[in-house]
Parts: sequence; C-alpha cells; structure tokens
Amino acid sequence: MFEAAELGVKIDKPTWEKQEPRLREHLLHTQADLARSKYSCVVLVSGVEGAGKRETANLLLEWLDARGVQTHVMREPSDEELARPEYWRYWRRLPPTGRTGIFLGSWYSRHIVGRVFGETKDKDLDQALDRIVEFERMLVNEKTILVKLWMHISKKMQRKRLTALEQDKLTRWRVSKLDWRFFKRYDKFRKVSEHALGRTSTAEAPWHIIEATDERYRAMTAVKTLLGAIRERLDAPPPETKKPKPAQVVSLPRKTMLNELDQSLSVAPARYEKQLPKLQARLNRLAHRLWQKGRSLVLVFEGPDAAGKGGTIRRLTPPIDASQWEVVSVAAPTDEESAHPYLWRFWRNLPRSGQISIYDRSWYGRVLVERVEAFSAPEDWQRAYAEINSFEEQLVEAGAIILKFWLAITQDEQLRRFKDRELTPYKQYKLTEEDWRNRAKWDAYEQAACDMFERTGTSAAHWILVEANDKHYARLKVLKTVNRALEKAL
Amino acid sequence: MFEAAELGVKIDKPTWEKQEPRLREHLLHTQADLARSKYSCVVLVSGVEGAGKRETANLLLEWLDARGVQTHVMREPSDEELARPEYWRYWRRLPPTGRTGIFLGSWYSRHIVGRVFGETKDKDLDQALDRIVEFERMLVNEKTILVKLWMHISKKMQRKRLTALEQDKLTRWRVSKLDWRFFKRYDKFRKVSEHALGRTSTAEAPWHIIEATDERYRAMTAVKTLLGAIRERLDAPPPETKKPKPAQVVSLPRKTMLNELDQSLSVAPARYEKQLPKLQARLNRLAHRLWQKGRSLVLVFEGPDAAGKGGTIRRLTPPIDASQWEVVSVAAPTDEESAHPYLWRFWRNLPRSGQISIYDRSWYGRVLVERVEAFSAPEDWQRAYAEINSFEEQLVEAGAIILKFWLAITQDEQLRRFKDRELTPYKQYKLTEEDWRNRAKWDAYEQAACDMFERTGTSAAHWILVEANDKHYARLKVLKTVNRALEKAL
Repeated sequence: MFEAAELGVKIDKPTWEKQEPRLREHLLHTQADLARSKYSCVVLVSGVEGAGKRETANLLLEWLDARGVQTHVMREPSDEELARPEYWRYWRRLPPTGRTGIFLGSWYSRHIVGRVFGETKDKDLDQALDRIVEFERMLVNEKTILVKLWMHISKKMQRKRLTALEQDKLTRWRVSKLDWRFFKRYDKFRKVSEHALGRTSTAEAPWHIIEATDERYRAMTAVKTLLGAIRERLDAPPPETKKPKPAQVVSLPRKTMLNELDQSLSVAPARYEKQLPKLQARLNRLAHRLWQKGRSLVLVFEGPDAAGKGGTIRRLTPPIDASQWEVVSVAAPTDEESAHPYLWRFWRNLPRSGQISIYDRSWYGRVLVERVEAFSAPEDWQRAYAEINSFEEQLVEAGAIILKFWLAITQDEQLRRFKDRELTPYKQYKLTEEDWRNRAKWDAYEQAACDMFERTGTSAAHWILVEANDKHYARLKVLKTVNRALEKAL
Repeated sequence: MFEAAELGVKIDKPTWEKQEPRLREHLLHTQADLARSKYSCVVLVSGVEGAGKRETANLLLEWLDARGVQTHVMREPSDEELARPEYWRYWRRLPPTGRTGIFLGSWYSRHIVGRVFGETKDKDLDQALDRIVEFERMLVNEKTILVKLWMHISKKMQRKRLTALEQDKLTRWRVSKLDWRFFKRYDKFRKVSEHALGRTSTAEAPWHIIEATDERYRAMTAVKTLLGAIRERLDAPPPETKKPKPAQVVSLPRKTMLNELDQSLSVAPARYEKQLPKLQARLNRLAHRLWQKGRSLVLVFEGPDAAGKGGTIRRLTPPIDASQWEVVSVAAPTDEESAHPYLWRFWRNLPRSGQISIYDRSWYGRVLVERVEAFSAPEDWQRAYAEINSFEEQLVEAGAIILKFWLAITQDEQLRRFKDRELTPYKQYKLTEEDWRNRAKWDAYEQAACDMFERTGTSAAHWILVEANDKHYARLKVLKTVNRALEKAL
C-alpha cells in the first residue's frame, strides 16, 4: 500500500510558485461555498511521525479563512472525557454545518498505537476499526465531508527528519522519547497502519495516502485532495428530493408484541400503596451502591401520549439523591443541535459515570415520530437503527446499565385518558391538538414501535414492554424491573 | 444574624398535611409560568453541614416538574475547569431561559471554607465576596431569578445530626472526616458565614436564612421562599418598555483619542517586506515560550468595517503552531446563546491555558453595535462596561495576557476601501448594504468607541489604538506590540 507513496515525486519551485496563488484562491472560494451549504467538513491529518502533519495543518490554516476552521490536537483525554465513552471527545468537537474541523490525531491514533506496542491484540484492533467504519459512515450520511489524509515517509526519511528536528533549537521540543520508540517500531507501525487503512478505506470515506518526502508535493497534494473532496460533495447533483411521504400502514399482522400484551393486568390500590414504598426503599439502597461503584444507569421511556411516562418517572426519582439523577425531556432540537449529526444532542449531554439519566422520550424519536410524520427521509430513519445500537453499545461498554421501557396502552384507554384530561382543569394544558392528530395515526405508530423493538432490542439493551392500562401495575413493574436489573449488575 | 434562626419554630403534622398539596400545586403552576417567561432561576442551597441541604434539594426536585430542573453538586473542579478562571464552572452550568438550576455548593463554598481553615486572609475573602456581588448583580440584571437559601442549625443540633447520620448504615457514607473537622470549627464557620452573608445580602440578591431544626418548617419555608421570589419577579409590572432609540450624537469634542491619531504614519513596501518575516520569527519563538509556561494570550480586534482586521490577523497566525491558536469570529448569537446572560457565549468558548485566542470582533459588540443600533436598552449596555472589566480581570488572574486593538481609519479611507471592494471581483462579497448603513452612523460609532476606551481601558487590559490608514504600518505595529507584550510577560 505504502510503496505507492515512496516514488520520490517532487514539485519544483517554479511550478509551486505558479500554482500556489490559484490554489489558494480556489480553496477560499470553496470554503465560502461550504459555509453556505448544508455540509460540514472534517479533515484528519494522520500518518508517520515526522512526515509533516503539523506543517500540513499549519498550511491549511494559513490558506483557509481562519474564521471557519478549528484545529483539534487530540492529546491525553481529560478527566471529564475519561468519565464517558471513548467517542465523546470526538463528538464534542464535531464542527457544525458550514464549518471545518482539522484533527491532528483522531479516533485512529489510540488503537494503532496500542497495537504497535503490543498492548492490544489483532482482534481488539479489528473491533475498533469496525466501530470506526460505522462512525464514519454515520458522519458521511449526516452531511459531513470527511477527508482522511495519511502522510507517509520511508523509515530512512523518518530518521532524517527526527534528527533534523532535534538538531534545531526551535523544534527540538517536538521530538520526544516516544517518537524514537516509535521509530524503532517503524516496520510494525507500517504493518499495523496498512491493515488499519485497508480496513477503513470505505467508499464513503477513503484514505488518501500522500507521499510526504518533498514538502511542496506534500502541501500541494494535501490541498488538492481536500479541495477535490469538498467540491465533489458540493457539486454533486442534489439527491432526488422526492418529499418523503408519511408512512403508509397496509395492515398490521394479527400477532405483534404489542397486541399480545395482557392489558387486563392490574394491581389493587391497597396493594399498590403497600408495595410502592418498599420498592422505593430498595431502589434507594441500589442507587447508592451504583454510585459507589461508579456505574451509570440510563432509563428510556417511550410510549403513546398519555401512557403515563411522567407519572412513572415521578415514582422513580424521590428515593434517589438529588445529586445523582437527571430527567431529560426530549423536545425539538435547538439550532446548534440541528447543525450537527442527529445523535449529537444526546452525546453532548451524556452524564459522567455514577449518574442516573432518565429520558422522557429519547433518541428513538428518529424511528418513531420522525418516521411516521415523515420529518426524516426513509434512508435516514432506516440507518438510525444501527446508529442507535452502536450508541447504546458504547454506553454499555463505558459501564452504563440501559433499560428501555415502552409503556403500552390500548386505543380505548388513551381515549379515556384524553377525555379525562379535557375535563380536569389542571390537566387541560397537557392535551393539545397534536395529541389528537397523533392518535389518528395509531396504526402507523404501532408499526414503527414493533419495527423498533425488533431492530433495537439488543442483548445489551433490550426493550421492556409494560402493560400500562393500569397505572399502578405499570409503575410497580417498572420499579421492580429497575431494581432487579441493578441487583443483577451490581 | 443567626440568632433569628434559633428560635425553635416548628410546624406540626396536621398543618403540614393541610398545606402540602396546595403548596405543591402552587409550585408546579409557578414553574410552568417560569417556563413561559423570559427568566431563568438559580437556587443556591447552602448552609451548615447537617442542616438538610440535600434533603431540601431532594424535596424541591420531588415537587417540581423534573423536566425543567437540573441539580449541580459542586465537588472538586475537573482538570478542564482548573485550566480556566474560577467562574467558568458556574457559567457553564447556568440554566437557559425558562429553566431552573439548583446548586448544592456554589461560588461561596470555596471562599468560606478557605477562610475557616485559615488558608486565606480576611482581605482575600472580602475580595472574593466583592466579585460575588458583581457576578450576582449581573445574573439578576440578565433575567436570572436568584434565590439564596441558607440552612442554619445550632452547634448542638449539628453534633446531633452528624451523629445520627453516622449511626444509620444507609447514611453513614455522607459523613466524612471533613464534616467533623468542620464541626470543630463551628464557631469560626458561623463567624465567617455571618460576615459573608452580610456582605452579599444585596437588594437584588438577598440571603434567606432558614431555621432548619424542624424538618417540616425547613421544607415549607424553603418552598415558600422560592415561590415568593419567583412570583415577585414574574408578577412585577413589565418595566417601561420605551423602545430604545438609536444613539443621538450631539457633537463630538474636537479632541478625541481617535482624531488625535496621526494617520499619516506609513511604512514603505520594501521596509515592510523586510520587517514582517523578522517580527513573525520572533512571534514564533515567543508563542512557543507562552505554551511552555502554560500562559494564555487573548487578542481582541475591533474597528470600523474595512479597517483591516482580517488582514492583520492573517499576518499573526502563520508563525504560530496550528494547535495553539484559534480565531473566533463573533457574529449573531445562536438561540442557546440568546437564552443565557450576554457574556455566556464568550465564557463557554474560553480556551484552556496555553492557548492563543484571536477575536475578530468580541464582547465589545455590546457597547458598540448594540449601543449604536439600539439592539440593547441603555441600562443594559451601560452596565456592560463593568461586567466586561470584571470578565477580563478574571482572565488575567487565570494567567491570560490580554491585548485589545482598535484599528482606526478615517472616513475617507473607508470610502476608498469600500469602492475598491466594489470594483474587485473577489472582494465584492465582503461589502454589504449594512456596511453602507453603518458608515452613515460614523459619528455615533466614534462616540461609542471613545466611551469604550475610557471605561474599559484598564491597567490589566488597556486599548491599543492603531493608525491603520496604511495597512503595512498597522500590521507591523500590531506585531511589534504583541511581541513586546509577550517579552515583558514571559
């Protein structure tokens, strides 16, 4: 793979001087077009130590309009970053629509370095690379122009460069012991990188290997590659924008997970009053143990309007210490959130480990309301299943326990509750026109829910369907399930 | 002060049971009103250890709609927080419009504790308290309802509470050695707190001392105090909304800092070409030293349209390593930014120490464009001078070097540059209708600028006026000034 970047290509000074002004102008214009577009741009500047990664970043920054770019040098993670899944530090740095982020060091570095120094095995690396492919595919689908540059030099050249850097007083600080340790493992590094690049050079996000021996050639190729990648996306004919149509439900199968529920299940009020405090006391102790062990708990509540999500949540929080839980109510995204990939709004608010987050509606909006109401194109909500599974998998890996509750009620019961809300003065505000409109789409929502159970019910985070026609029964079931899951995990 | 909270007031159970439901309903309604208002709410729950601070927060959370509240337990600062001014951790947690933040531990804790344990002197505490008063005044002016609750118990009662907590298996973890060390210094703590509360009980943000011996009384008083404070702000008649009028300039004095500038200063092109690389090389070395010493540099650029801010910035950045600098271009705030106090958007993006941030326009927009165009009411931009001074003072205390440049050009020169932009194809996009409109208000802008020099030219961060009719002269002057300031500081 890298032989193709050891050919000794060069650009002479006159050629450079002739091309430079045009290239710079072209780059500026393209950046201005990007700023007006719906795309953002992420540039990874990676490669061999000493091949000129910093110099490339510096050059891009010099040529671009600095107001639309930000550079991220990924050093050691901060303690806030260590208390969250690995990718949190990348998510928080993703540029919004119209802007560019240049990454020196990226989601590759840790895994390649780990393998080179024998801290991980081949299969760990491959797992990490699979996640990278997933992540990058999501970025590209979410209107990110992802440009991956790999600066390559030969072993001989690396020695020469490191020595030169070390001999210059001004650049000596840039060469560390680690660099020389790295140099000793050049061959291993080359082998691991080759494997990593091969596995992650996908159609949507290919690697560009740049021969970095000649500085002018390196600079010009980097800029041209970047330009080409941005222009390709910006100039592509807009995808056929047939406006997505609201979901059509042909007919639901007779047996679904939802209509198989036994909605006659109920708990007598006296029994409820007796059981509730007991379960809450148990939750109090378990929540404290969770905190001691530094684990997190993520509770997701979904279900039709008036299914009792709020009421159930209000039975969960009182026994938990105020410092430990947070209820996140998911409504319309802010403009900053809309300018980022869909899951960004959930990533940015991820709690540190030890916390309990309770979601009143969640990231599943993408495959429920956005699907049914056609707020998202079919290809967007369809890929969301896999993206959500990956998101939850990462939470679980970082020590979270995830429980996802679907509070199910029947259509009749919803009608009864809507009418009750209409009649009770302090509940009226809870019932809106929209609730009635959603109700008319009952079957489409049921179909979306059943698809969601099927595609996101993973072993790491399965769905718990709760028979919620009887509120008391539903609340006790949720509390019991939470307690049992905590007991099992702690 | 605290004797008034040692009277042994109690609420009996029947009274509590009678009042509770009404109070809860009232609280929920008030929270809903808050959500629809332009206010946010910050509640500080402070006081003696063992007086029931956590219990109070828990109760508020149980009674409030959890979807509009967030609790912040201020423990040790994270490393990201330690790399920024002290108040950064509070700014980042301020609730947006319509929402409530409950703080357990706050901007008081560190300073009171430090004084109690003799780590600081009286005058340090007083300085800290003065800053608190300033900060809180800003919050209140920026539509935050600030409710400060102080839970008080006697020394005897504290011993009883701590012992009880320690004897219960479930709460034992909550009593630390520190709590007992604190108990031993109860009298000192009482004295220091009394002083702190006295000094920070201002008209706009008074302390509410709550006798916390009886749990029911404590709970009810906390809720009623909160309710009262929110209602008072929400129900206040809207301030006279005479629409602010654009600034009227009667006449500028004949001598101002601006018209005293010698705009004939210039540099011959040959000299410029020779000097520029030398100054840049010097900057390269100084920037690296800055990074080694972990200091920050903040450069602010203001001035009329076409004064050459962008061009000057582009001469500064090339010699600095890409990982070390960032250009922040200040445009219209996002909706999240508009939902917070004015300076929030600058606080949230504060770089870590060691960085160089270059602002192309800045927080001074408040006293320039917002004043002249009447985007802000006079009382708002008038208080901004002091707020900005405090902001910059905090940056300097945290190790930043601040240089504020005003690039000055004459009206004739601006006209010449506008016409040039009209004629040069790739510069046309830089000239908008708005530029012509701003130009018509030249005198008003000059007056605003002169007021700004006068009121925000502090010893920590003074203004440097740059004669910018000749671009070359201006760029060299800026570079020289930056270099000299770095040399002096490092």
